[in-house]
Amino acid sequence: MESSILVVGSVALDSVKTPFGQADEVLGGSATYFSVAASFFSRIRVVAVVGTDFGDDHAAMFKRHNIDTDGLVRTDGRTFRWKGEYSYDLNEARTLDTQLNVFESFEPTIPTSYKASDYVFLGNIDPELQLQVLDQIEQPRIVACDTMNFWIDGKLDELKRTLRRVDILLINDGETRMLAGEANLVRAAHKIMAMGPRILIVKRGEYGVLMFNENSIFGAPAFPLEEVYDPTGAGDSFAGGFMGYLAQAGELTDDALRRAIIFGSVMASFNVEKFSLDGLSRLTRTDIDTRFGQFKKLTHFEAL
Amino acid sequence: MESSILVVGSVALDSVKTPFGQADEVLGGSATYFSVAASFFSRIRVVAVVGTDFGDDHAAMFKRHNIDTDGLVRTDGRTFRWKGEYSYDLNEARTLDTQLNVFESFEPTIPTSYKASDYVFLGNIDPELQLQVLDQIEQPRIVACDTMNFWIDGKLDELKRTLRRVDILLINDGETRMLAGEANLVRAAHKIMAMGPRILIVKRGEYGVLMFNENSIFGAPAFPLEEVYDPTGAGDSFAGGFMGYLAQAGELTDDALRRAIIFGSVMASFNVEKFSLDGLSRLTRTDIDTRFGQFKKLTHFEAL
Repeated sequence: MESSILVVGSVALDSVKTPFGQADEVLGGSATYFSVAASFFSRIRVVAVVGTDFGDDHAAMFKRHNIDTDGLVRTDGRTFRWKGEYSYDLNEARTLDTQLNVFESFEPTIPTSYKASDYVFLGNIDPELQLQVLDQIEQPRIVACDTMNFWIDGKLDELKRTLRRVDILLINDGETRMLAGEANLVRAAHKIMAMGPRILIVKRGEYGVLMFNENSIFGAPAFPLEEVYDPTGAGDSFAGGFMGYLAQAGELTDDALRRAIIFGSVMASFNVEKFSLDGLSRLTRTDIDTRFGQFKKLTHFEAL
Repeated sequence: MESSILVVGSVALDSVKTPFGQADEVLGGSATYFSVAASFFSRIRVVAVVGTDFGDDHAAMFKRHNIDTDGLVRTDGRTFRWKGEYSYDLNEARTLDTQLNVFESFEPTIPTSYKASDYVFLGNIDPELQLQVLDQIEQPRIVACDTMNFWIDGKLDELKRTLRRVDILLINDGETRMLAGEANLVRAAHKIMAMGPRILIVKRGEYGVLMFNENSIFGAPAFPLEEVYDPTGAGDSFAGGFMGYLAQAGELTDDALRRAIIFGSVMASFNVEKFSLDGLSRLTRTDIDTRFGQFKKLTHFEAL
């Protein structure tokens, strides 16, 4: 049977401006980018909330990728909205406006059909909600989790409770140093692994990724691109490719984890090349495998 | 016959303070770090100037590594001095004091015994001096060159004249964008390769290296270290390992270049682990080859 991944996170309407163009109220959010990226590898079940303004055209994106939306609850009110812009270096978004709307009172309820999910991805939401989700799932094999400086700063105890039940944590390097209270990244990683996660993935944007586990460190550069249009969703696309491949591989060996990191990097690279979801939504598995091969060429050297 | 590399650059007395310790008036400078790192692979010939305060203990470091110092001129006056400090993130040095001293009137003269050098490394000095050096060398096989924002800003025309005669340029990512006038690193690299160098090596500090040539891009992370004490000389140690291995390999194939990048990264990683030259000076070739193997483990993943 094909593996299923349950993802909880945000489904949003994003308005994004970069030096190369802009988009208004287009489908976005962590759960959306994750789901679409992961759908090329595994069956995806999404848990999120939207408002009455969430249209059939938005729903069609999930349907086209065979994403199970039984857990996508529609409630009275407006969908979560995020508005941001990027300057030329494209490294960090400047948030212009955030309207939580229906997301403000989001209480994730896991449909019965989702309760036996083997793989769980906790998108970057309140760590108390992440725990609520975990409490409703029977016996997940692998739990991965994203978080951010806002929760590290404001809900550290709650976050630490969540981390005790997490196998894989994905955060950026600033968040790694902040969560560990340690400037050296290797020492910071070991401190965080002592909090629960046996695998830590440190995302470094255009510089790539480092993955730490008890036995080894794996490092990969980001795919060098001539065109970077819109970095929105890069981290969630990475997580989607990573978890999607892991669930497909069905094992947590070092080999599988390393390939999963590369598939994550592949999905992030496709995502940033175009606006919004355009970089992901029209891909084929052949496109993905071809870029995986290009990654091998990018990083390979002969041993002594 | 063993290949020889001629290096021109600074020999300095450095005073360095980091959060972990400090050193006063210890041997440093770009030509010094380069020479010691490269000496594990090839014969090195150094061209630089020192003052009358340059002692036998300083000269002993070059002698111990079989570095040819026929081109190390001693003149009246004091040796070049640099004083700097690093804060906790160790990414960028804050220069507290620079005394050019004898370096101010440095006119590099290449000894007759150096004129047939196959490999040349032009350390980060005035591009006019770099050209003067090139004019005195008979027919170098490979010329590599370092530079910095100070010359890109102040002597762009002179630098461009030098670059026309350079095979390999090594600079950091900020300098790459600045020299090309282009924010996207891949497009910036192509613009710079059109200025002369057929190979561009973009150094990204703790994030690693990208190497561009006409046919491919190679990316490698930096070696993750639990202890980083003193980043002084990391770029020159990288260049030394890179050029040292290239000269030893005797060919400029893509395979040799990629391995050279890894040997450069190995030497930089040893350098930053200890203060001043302590990280390099006591190494053995076995230590170096062992870390090369660890780099393979760090970056390897199985193809599809």
